[in-house]
Amino acid sequence: MAVVLGPNRYGKAETRVVRVTRDGDVHRIKDVNVSVALSGAMDAVHLTGDNSAVLPTDSQKNTVFAFAKEHGIAAIEDFGLLLARHFTRSQAAVAHARVEIHEYGWERITGGHSFARTGAEVRTALVHSDGEGGAESVVSGLADLVVLNSTGSEFHGFARDAYTTLEPTRDRVLATAVTARWRHRGTDADWDDSYRGAREDLLLAFAETRSLSLQQTLYQMGRRVLEAQAGLCEVRLSLPNKHHFLVDLKPFGLDNDNEVYFAADRPYGLIEGAVLADDAPPAPSAWE
Amino acid sequence: MAVVLGPNRYGKAETRVVRVTRDGDVHRIKDVNVSVALSGAMDAVHLTGDNSAVLPTDSQKNTVFAFAKEHGIAAIEDFGLLLARHFTRSQAAVAHARVEIHEYGWERITGGHSFARTGAEVRTALVHSDGEGGAESVVSGLADLVVLNSTGSEFHGFARDAYTTLEPTRDRVLATAVTARWRHRGTDADWDDSYRGAREDLLLAFAETRSLSLQQTLYQMGRRVLEAQAGLCEVRLSLPNKHHFLVDLKPFGLDNDNEVYFAADRPYGLIEGAVLADDAPPAPSAWE
Amino acid sequence: MAVVLGPNRYGKAETRVVRVTRDGDVHRIKDVNVSVALSGAMDAVHLTGDNSAVLPTDSQKNTVFAFAKEHGIAAIEDFGLLLARHFTRSQAAVAHARVEIHEYGWERITGGHSFARTGAEVRTALVHSDGEGGAESVVSGLADLVVLNSTGSEFHGFARDAYTTLEPTRDRVLATAVTARWRHRGTDADWDDSYRGAREDLLLAFAETRSLSLQQTLYQMGRRVLEAQAGLCEVRLSLPNKHHFLVDLKPFGLDNDNEVYFAADRPYGLIEGAVLADDAPPAPSAWE
Amino acid sequence: MAVVLGPNRYGKAETRVVRVTRDGDVHRIKDVNVSVALSGAMDAVHLTGDNSAVLPTDSQKNTVFAFAKEHGIAAIEDFGLLLARHFTRSQAAVAHARVEIHEYGWERITGGHSFARTGAEVRTALVHSDGEGGAESVVSGLADLVVLNSTGSEFHGFARDAYTTLEPTRDRVLATAVTARWRHRGTDADWDDSYRGAREDLLLAFAETRSLSLQQTLYQMGRRVLEAQAGLCEVRLSLPNKHHFLVDLKPFGLDNDNEVYFAADRPYGLIEGAVLADDAPPAPSAWE
Repeated sequence: MAVVLGPNRYGKAETRVVRVTRDGDVHRIKDVNVSVALSGAMDAVHLTGDNSAVLPTDSQKNTVFAFAKEHGIAAIEDFGLLLARHFTRSQAAVAHARVEIHEYGWERITGGHSFARTGAEVRTALVHSDGEGGAESVVSGLADLVVLNSTGSEFHGFARDAYTTLEPTRDRVLATAVTARWRHRGTDADWDDSYRGAREDLLLAFAETRSLSLQQTLYQMGRRVLEAQAGLCEVRLSLPNKHHFLVDLKPFGLDNDNEVYFAADRPYGLIEGAVLADDAPPAPSAWE
Repeated sequence: MAVVLGPNRYGKAETRVVRVTRDGDVHRIKDVNVSVALSGAMDAVHLTGDNSAVLPTDSQKNTVFAFAKEHGIAAIEDFGLLLARHFTRSQAAVAHARVEIHEYGWERITGGHSFARTGAEVRTALVHSDGEGGAESVVSGLADLVVLNSTGSEFHGFARDAYTTLEPTRDRVLATAVTARWRHRGTDADWDDSYRGAREDLLLAFAETRSLSLQQTLYQMGRRVLEAQAGLCEVRLSLPNKHHFLVDLKPFGLDNDNEVYFAADRPYGLIEGAVLADDAPPAPSAWE
Repeated sequence: MAVVLGPNRYGKAETRVVRVTRDGDVHRIKDVNVSVALSGAMDAVHLTGDNSAVLPTDSQKNTVFAFAKEHGIAAIEDFGLLLARHFTRSQAAVAHARVEIHEYGWERITGGHSFARTGAEVRTALVHSDGEGGAESVVSGLADLVVLNSTGSEFHGFARDAYTTLEPTRDRVLATAVTARWRHRGTDADWDDSYRGAREDLLLAFAETRSLSLQQTLYQMGRRVLEAQAGLCEVRLSLPNKHHFLVDLKPFGLDNDNEVYFAADRPYGLIEGAVLADDAPPAPSAWE
Repeated sequence: MAVVLGPNRYGKAETRVVRVTRDGDVHRIKDVNVSVALSGAMDAVHLTGDNSAVLPTDSQKNTVFAFAKEHGIAAIEDFGLLLARHFTRSQAAVAHARVEIHEYGWERITGGHSFARTGAEVRTALVHSDGEGGAESVVSGLADLVVLNSTGSEFHGFARDAYTTLEPTRDRVLATAVTARWRHRGTDADWDDSYRGAREDLLLAFAETRSLSLQQTLYQMGRRVLEAQAGLCEVRLSLPNKHHFLVDLKPFGLDNDNEVYFAADRPYGLIEGAVLADDAPPAPSAWE
């Protein structure tokens, strides 16, 4: 047996940049977390420690800051493409770049330069590029969007085995923390408009689906995004079932008509799935 | 030397309750995290393991759920008082109850029963009671309210010693995650109205203060709350200085006119202080 | 365009089980976190909410508990295989099961039944099964093993571009939090012995490699495991470069001969790579 | 009503320092997290933004690094005293300094310069000083020491009310994450020896106490430390009751003779208490 090097990548993770843009006294801020990963002809550094093909992760960090100045940060998808193309174009050894960006939202308090964070929810972008003109992909998304339906959810008619004690229900709380990502057909779009649309579609599909299972809700969420957003071809969702258990109040002489719930931490159900346009080009690497 | 028992307390922490109230098809939800701590004549259990004075923490948890059903959850201050008084009144050994409640915010998506979490920010209440008629205190507050001013902040004229290398600045980013708590003069108030007012005062004081130091901002935030809210007598603030360092872009031939910042994690400045009405009655235990 | 369902899976995540085994007065404890994910003929539940193929995640949780009683928990790899095969065998709709288990270590304090947690490090197993006799894979590993070399690490001779300001170094601190996973050739092994060996190999390779880059260290760690453990065919490593920056003490009239370091949080380098035996059978799904 | 400034303090929190000491090829490392808080004549900065009394938190951070070089880091209690006295002595406006230090443990892998983190447990020190010769206090401790007894714990004979459904038990799992702090009588001690002794006392008292309640265990832990360590006068403990619930396996035709437990997250019991020598001088501020 001989030992060989397999797939590998390296880069600077979680460079935290805040970019301020001034329009007179009115400021805009963009608050992002940028992770770069490069791959290509990197055998030498692994096998012998020869760093001649290795652009330091420190230089990658510097590039993120310098590009934030030179180009500004428009949509995070644009900034990701800009960075990914830069590294593949400028470094001979780099065949492929992956750039992941998380964006944190802010809203104005008052005046032109005061802001408050909007929530735990983050907007995400994941860009892969073999260099401009080569294979490229853009996946947008969001994470930690926590939603809850206090009725309109059922769960019954399920399979049973010797370990099944769950009672079927016609009315339960359904809650989840949405992690959703959607793949664009191309690398050019009105990213902000697409994001607003997809986010709204997800929320409305969650709210308006009379749910017989979280899987059904997942599919409806993905379908609604794809049907409304022509530029997208695939949606992937990860939906933890944040269980809210109806508390048994009978020992205290009280009924509980779907009024008092215990919000449990662990364990939780976890529902994951993809919804695709039937003409979606295959792109397994887009999600890596 | 003999060994003696000092101050002690016990209880059930972090009971997570979601209470749904239905007004026809329109639901309201209250999402809270309740921590109870009881104290009193508890020598026996510590010294000999005699549990006869110990109401199980499991019973405390059940009480939280049962009271959520029986009484609903109006303002968390009310719910805290209700629980604290119940334990002191109903348990002979319990001289004192402390109830801390965190509330998570939700906003409607669409329709009557679909909700999205509003953010990382939490509303807090801390209630102490020796029983109704005895000493009682109510402290309200918020935590994890993240705010940022992209200009209007300076820091100069500070003390210098042999270890001082910091350059003075006339224009910096000022950002913090506000933890604020305010003490009420009494145990009866329009808690929701008071909360909305105090939160707004904090935000506006942060936004409108031209800041020469975070201490000055802290004082202005506390002062504004006290001056606007007659029912309050003390405000305590904990403000981490979430440093945003201007990135040096000169090595890349770029200037940085307060445009590109690195958002650092650690270390951070931490500014803590109290602001009081001069007629505030002393109440050190209210904050424990 | 039509919308279709893509790959999906569901299950109960993070069931926390502690299993006590008594050998007279001497107890052994096994503390694990089990996550099950099932997939197969699940179109109906997604498209129409028909749950007839859906074994509730609650039943999966019950199975974990019941199997812990009936079969005990030997190595987590065995317990994972047991569970995965059970679900594929017993549920007609389930073509494939994925079981991930994290194990937390405990050591004896004194006597037969008192234990202390050994650290943040966790032992991991990831099992995939199409049912006994079908395709199966076992990946073992560890996470959060934090290691540091205070010398014996260099970084120089790297590529440079317009954004490179990093100084080369012949002596730096190298620290990382190891996440390592290794794929077994078969589904039968002395798992505990294999784990102890692989863990030791990783530690020694980290300690004994004079490192010119973290990539080189990564490769040596993977190589050493493969060369020493005949039952393994692939190792994957994720190594964050936990930067320790030499503090500039010159402004205070002090030199810093690699004595005082600032341990930074973010950003950090992230080095990821696979090392394989050249005869390793391909198994991309083993890692999902 | 007039508004006045109340108690306040400020400083640099969480400066992360790793100090390497070389004895030939054998290195020792000290990995600490230092938080400084200063207070004194700070009215001006709060009321008007006059920073002339404010030593920047950046200078405090520099001092931590410079002192790590100049003085090394022996026991964290010593390093805390050194820093606290420095700030009170060198800054006219600073009447009082509080220094809190967390230390992370490392053990050797092999050779002289390779280390692995020992666990999640941290050693802590909290120092208060009005300046050398003035009032001073030293509190040592540990946090996140997770321990479990798989038998030898009971809970029965407790108070009951209308909300009590808990069954008494003669045999349960008792688990907790110990946060313990102990106050020294003076400011001079063999800190490392004292720490090793107190830690061992806590572990043995936890292991050897046949427990009728976690309160009883708490008291025994504190008592054992005080009786064994003459230099200490007070111990404070915070013990979350990490509930391990016996799983009901009867629905599956299985008994559960204290073998299979569900390790729950929330809610949890929380037991807090102090144990004192009867001649302990009062020092409420030592714990702030």
